[in-house]
Amino acid sequence: MTQLTHFNQSGEAHMVDVGNKDITERVAIAEGYIEMNPTTLTLIEQGTHKKGDVLGIARIAGIMASKKTADLVPLCHPLPISHVEVNLEIENDTSRVYCRTTVKTRGQTGVEMEALTATQVSLLTVYDMCKAVDRGMTIQGVRLLKKSGGKSGDWLRP
Amino acid sequence: MTQLTHFNQSGEAHMVDVGNKDITERVAIAEGYIEMNPTTLTLIEQGTHKKGDVLGIARIAGIMASKKTADLVPLCHPLPISHVEVNLEIENDTSRVYCRTTVKTRGQTGVEMEALTATQVSLLTVYDMCKAVDRGMTIQGVRLLKKSGGKSGDWLRP
Amino acid sequence: MTQLTHFNQSGEAHMVDVGNKDITERVAIAEGYIEMNPTTLTLIEQGTHKKGDVLGIARIAGIMASKKTADLVPLCHPLPISHVEVNLEIENDTSRVYCRTTVKTRGQTGVEMEALTATQVSLLTVYDMCKAVDRGMTIQGVRLLKKSGGKSGDWLRP
Amino acid sequence: MTQLTHFNQSGEAHMVDVGNKDITERVAIAEGYIEMNPTTLTLIEQGTHKKGDVLGIARIAGIMASKKTADLVPLCHPLPISHVEVNLEIENDTSRVYCRTTVKTRGQTGVEMEALTATQVSLLTVYDMCKAVDRGMTIQGVRLLKKSGGKSGDWLRP
Amino acid sequence: MTQLTHFNQSGEAHMVDVGNKDITERVAIAEGYIEMNPTTLTLIEQGTHKKGDVLGIARIAGIMASKKTADLVPLCHPLPISHVEVNLEIENDTSRVYCRTTVKTRGQTGVEMEALTATQVSLLTVYDMCKAVDRGMTIQGVRLLKKSGGKSGDWLRP
Amino acid sequence: MTQLTHFNQSGEAHMVDVGNKDITERVAIAEGYIEMNPTTLTLIEQGTHKKGDVLGIARIAGIMASKKTADLVPLCHPLPISHVEVNLEIENDTSRVYCRTTVKTRGQTGVEMEALTATQVSLLTVYDMCKAVDRGMTIQGVRLLKKSGGKSGDWLRP
Repeated sequence: MTQLTHFNQSGEAHMVDVGNKDITERVAIAEGYIEMNPTTLTLIEQGTHKKGDVLGIARIAGIMASKKTADLVPLCHPLPISHVEVNLEIENDTSRVYCRTTVKTRGQTGVEMEALTATQVSLLTVYDMCKAVDRGMTIQGVRLLKKSGGKSGDWLRP
Repeated sequence: MTQLTHFNQSGEAHMVDVGNKDITERVAIAEGYIEMNPTTLTLIEQGTHKKGDVLGIARIAGIMASKKTADLVPLCHPLPISHVEVNLEIENDTSRVYCRTTVKTRGQTGVEMEALTATQVSLLTVYDMCKAVDRGMTIQGVRLLKKSGGKSGDWLRP
Repeated sequence: MTQLTHFNQSGEAHMVDVGNKDITERVAIAEGYIEMNPTTLTLIEQGTHKKGDVLGIARIAGIMASKKTADLVPLCHPLPISHVEVNLEIENDTSRVYCRTTVKTRGQTGVEMEALTATQVSLLTVYDMCKAVDRGMTIQGVRLLKKSGGKSGDWLRP
Repeated sequence: MTQLTHFNQSGEAHMVDVGNKDITERVAIAEGYIEMNPTTLTLIEQGTHKKGDVLGIARIAGIMASKKTADLVPLCHPLPISHVEVNLEIENDTSRVYCRTTVKTRGQTGVEMEALTATQVSLLTVYDMCKAVDRGMTIQGVRLLKKSGGKSGDWLRP
Repeated sequence: MTQLTHFNQSGEAHMVDVGNKDITERVAIAEGYIEMNPTTLTLIEQGTHKKGDVLGIARIAGIMASKKTADLVPLCHPLPISHVEVNLEIENDTSRVYCRTTVKTRGQTGVEMEALTATQVSLLTVYDMCKAVDRGMTIQGVRLLKKSGGKSGDWLRP
Repeated sequence: MTQLTHFNQSGEAHMVDVGNKDITERVAIAEGYIEMNPTTLTLIEQGTHKKGDVLGIARIAGIMASKKTADLVPLCHPLPISHVEVNLEIENDTSRVYCRTTVKTRGQTGVEMEALTATQVSLLTVYDMCKAVDRGMTIQGVRLLKKSGGKSGDWLRP
């Protein structure tokens, strides 16, 4: 018998019943980054000050993607998101763009998947915009930092 | 002046004109993995043999996501994908699920973004299905392995 | 004068105002089946035990489709679904795959359309995966079995 | 070993490679119907002459749904549809609405799924618009009538 | 420092936090029109009485588009719409089709964008259906007429 | 008998058959603008130089919307767009933001609707981002400027 809640007692996938869960405020924060050549990072950095705003576009892509999470992840519940914040930062010493995303809702299930999806798509969009000059970029460390609200309570990455 | 092709000469984002590019067969292969607790990996492994097929569902999610790439990545061209293959493997020694995705098309632009998107969403789906038992799982090493076709020719990760 | 609620007094289609309806728990159960050649059914049956899991994929397709109902059916209200369960069973004596879907929500309108849509798309997906060996498969008997909740109360197929 | 082409040799689902198939004109015709109370059919019939055009809306829903087929059916290839025709007819003697859909494309794979999806969603939309007066309506006989084009050639329901 | 609420204190776009706003009934009414040749208007007018119902299709397109607003407008919150009404009228003296849309919800943010999006897409659909005979049609005067509900209270076009 | 091509000989809507049309390069250019208070325009102008880039976000929204045209406009053919350029300019003398969009494809039908849709959604996004300070903004003059390619040949606004 599996202990994974996304399967019923027959082992068949289902969308878990959250109908009896409380409606509480729920917050999730996720992070991730994309490694690249220092010269690629310089191109992005120049764009944010003047023209060709890679990070601004990646931020919008992440915010929009958070709204499509239930469309992408099969057993995810659709949720009325109440807040999304995508922060993208250039880290010169490690030659990467770091992304941290916060998502909130008032509902019966959490927004961890929304925060992770926004992070992933923001980083994918950085890849897309820079791939002509650097195909080797790598997305790393996409993970949950923190979540609060709901029956399982708060969780903080140890 | 930026050298990133996704911006025009005024530095404004645009969808690059690919109208004069040749229609050729294009292939892209991407990879990535998700690290987890060994006990989580064991739950997934049991499911693939009996019930609760996490990897089967993640595979479908990745294939479907590849078809939504242009919907997620703002400056990506819509493409008629002709083939998608998502391989997911349990790696016990490193306690992770490894994903490798192949996408093909005949068209005027490549399918690198489709392969990366499928990889990301497959791994996100693994996260979703196991998060109740392991919130700390981390997605790593999402990157292009190889691409062929098109004016820029073949590229193989060094 | 039409008695159909999806039209206003001028006979023009509209999305009915449900703003004053109570928020109650609502459940709908729908069913349907797909008839096929016995040899096709055998191929599906073999897959569920070993490889090539047609029913597992059809189940996921149905669950995902339930979330797109308001996108497909023009005058349907968007709803935050709280539970979806798609059961698919092989019926050897009648040579068909039977599907029964349960959908729940807490909201101002019912989920009959979501349950019917999930059923339809699950059966369509069975068709897609087996059509190379059996183009004559036929989808039959897609209908509501039961609904509860809301002003119109419970309904049970007589 | 499964004989279903939607699985690779390991029995894992994939989107079949159609890259080497010829680009030919492909046509598919599907049909289906929805049974209802005679009084419901009368309401629909009155609407088509005057106000409250149920069939006109169902037709549009079907056409739009054909464009979403690859979004609904997991292993379906995205296709540039070149023509869709949805015919809906009132059949008083059998108390049902009959639907026949024709879809065309020029491409590397057929449009059977598009024709079936359009038929299903047209009939679902009839259900939605009339369900307040007749919850017992049943969708029946959704199946392929004919397809032409492609390597497998023409097929006509026997 | 910008006073636009869609940017945080660092000037970066975000989806504004509406989690602490009250859930109230919210209504928005928008309008707009499309100017055309008198002969084009005559063709539309003939269709509404007999065949080729341009306005009926434009109405459905507008209603469906209102449900996609959060998918189109990047920083818009997803909302469970409870009512949509799209009125389209032929104005012979000014040779145009006039559109007025009402949208309602019970939620934490308003539905102005939903009403404007429905209006825009209804008028675009009129354009699409008539463009073969009149490419010069122009969409004009798309604007909010009124909104009520929420902290900012009622607003009526002066 | 209607002369509108989006209806068949029975007066029923259909997606016109373009299967026999030539595949040619097709270009469409559309324009439109949004009128606002001079103080609102000043807020936008400040953002483009420093922070809170309203026009950058509106541009991305327009580009992404062009890819959803066939999803919004019921009888529009899905098309593989090869180029999109959205230009947004601040016009201080008339206190408005002007938008001009160019879309290209190689295909069997034109991209007029894609250019108009991108224009509409770019302007709607400007509205969304500034509505908290100026609810009275009005979208005006959305129309085709030029199209080329296809059987009907070139068209230039007189």
